Amino acid sequence: MSKESITFIGTGVMGKSMAGHLLNAGYLVNVYNRTQSKTDELVANGAVWHDTPRSAAAKADIIITIVGFPKDVEEVYLGDDGILANAKSGSLIIDMTTSSPMLAKKIAAEATGKGIGALDAPVSGGDLGAREAKLSIMVGGVQEDFDRAAPVFEVMGKNIQLQGEPGAGQYTKMVNQIAIASGMLGISEAMAYAKKSGLDPFHVLKSIESGAAASWSLSNLSPRALKGDYAPGFFVKHFIKDMRIAIESADEMGLDLPGLKLAKSLYDKLAAQGGEDNGTQALLKLYIEQ
Amino acid sequence: MSKESITFIGTGVMGKSMAGHLLNAGYLVNVYNRTQSKTDELVANGAVWHDTPRSAAAKADIIITIVGFPKDVEEVYLGDDGILANAKSGSLIIDMTTSSPMLAKKIAAEATGKGIGALDAPVSGGDLGAREAKLSIMVGGVQEDFDRAAPVFEVMGKNIQLQGEPGAGQYTKMVNQIAIASGMLGISEAMAYAKKSGLDPFHVLKSIESGAAASWSLSNLSPRALKGDYAPGFFVKHFIKDMRIAIESADEMGLDLPGLKLAKSLYDKLAAQGGEDNGTQALLKLYIEQ
Repeated sequence: MSKESITFIGTGVMGKSMAGHLLNAGYLVNVYNRTQSKTDELVANGAVWHDTPRSAAAKADIIITIVGFPKDVEEVYLGDDGILANAKSGSLIIDMTTSSPMLAKKIAAEATGKGIGALDAPVSGGDLGAREAKLSIMVGGVQEDFDRAAPVFEVMGKNIQLQGEPGAGQYTKMVNQIAIASGMLGISEAMAYAKKSGLDPFHVLKSIESGAAASWSLSNLSPRALKGDYAPGFFVKHFIKDMRIAIESADEMGLDLPGLKLAKSLYDKLAAQGGEDNGTQALLKLYIEQ
Repeated sequence: MSKESITFIGTGVMGKSMAGHLLNAGYLVNVYNRTQSKTDELVANGAVWHDTPRSAAAKADIIITIVGFPKDVEEVYLGDDGILANAKSGSLIIDMTTSSPMLAKKIAAEATGKGIGALDAPVSGGDLGAREAKLSIMVGGVQEDFDRAAPVFEVMGKNIQLQGEPGAGQYTKMVNQIAIASGMLGISEAMAYAKKSGLDPFHVLKSIESGAAASWSLSNLSPRALKGDYAPGFFVKHFIKDMRIAIESADEMGLDLPGLKLAKSLYDKLAAQGGEDNGTQALLKLYIEQ
């Protein structure tokens, strides 16, 4: 069976690696990005450039997007020149942006009405996971569409789970971000306390990082923060976006999450102090500069 | 060199296992506990019972305590019939209770004045770690006393770290508890959101537990909470005690830790609803019963 043709919209840090893997796997890949130069390397490797999402969408069996914010997702899918107005009946859309679960449901409903399949499939694993094709891909949609997309997902990720109906991928990603949000409070407060009490925080990690306090963030992010290395693995501004979506969707369910709200308020403060382009580990700054 | 004689005060769940390891390793062990029956098994295995802390303290080269609350530590060390008034000059005291760093400093100062060595050495790893002699032991004191205690620690634990001067063991344990406190908020809020949004939380764990949200608590405690298994690994009432000490000691340093305060306020609420004898994973109840 010949491979389905793909359109890839959004070739930022994540998307560029992901589209590159698809090219390397032998897929025909159409690309569109608001900043054209970010597609240059992909085009040099065989991708086909399109001037508009409309043109790119019309050309492919499977249309993948990974853009910035929910408003970008809304525009690229639901706008007059967007994907749903121009994709072929029988095509499959896959939004891999971390975005609103309600928006994912809305897009899926509209797509279904046009005979287009739809999956929401946000990822975790960051730029490194994208580069190494080791992303965790959290998928919402129907089984048939998931099965159709599986060969494509397997080129980009390694932990690929259908979590439920449309929106379930986004809900799952929010679960992930909610756990991380208060977790970042915990490691930041713990390290601030270690420093303030005169301990050597790196030596403290030897006592605590393999026990009940063990976490990926404690072992990977707190050493960076302690060294004053605030370079982004994951940007503060993107984490704030995710926490906003999580709070809004929790509110829609009537669920109050005070830890998440506290974490967002502190990250908002960090961003207001100029930290929005730092990595999330920079939260420690708020505590040690009290 | 013959082994030093030991007095072990506080033979609850943790202390009983720890003293048992010392007996098995060939140490002479004197024991005292407020409830005598909790020493029966140790006495049957060769421990020597004493009616008072005073009598037990006077008999040993090394005096180990693991009792309940800071007030118990204060009483057993600083009371008229307590350890410091009765221990031999040249002996070594080791408090393994999770207790106040300031109190540990006070006890060490008084001990030094009497020619008695002093270490604060709280542990993590819980009843299982105590039973399997795999505790993490976080030690504050001087190097000479640490070296003297090392053979004894090695019988009870496996990750043994001198963290600094008197009080440093307690500060390190507080760092551990502070990281856990907000971490428990994170996993409880994440699982509540997963349930409320209609996801299968166990399937969600497959997507998130090996990535950036990974933590010991997420993998070990959230499955128990989701099954409604609130049996204590670590008691809510003891965690509240630890968080109180952490908040008080942070206040003493002029450090504001809002995540820790939020976590304590929610655990206080859980305790007020009758959950103080639950395990810490029972925090999920507060969210799913909103």
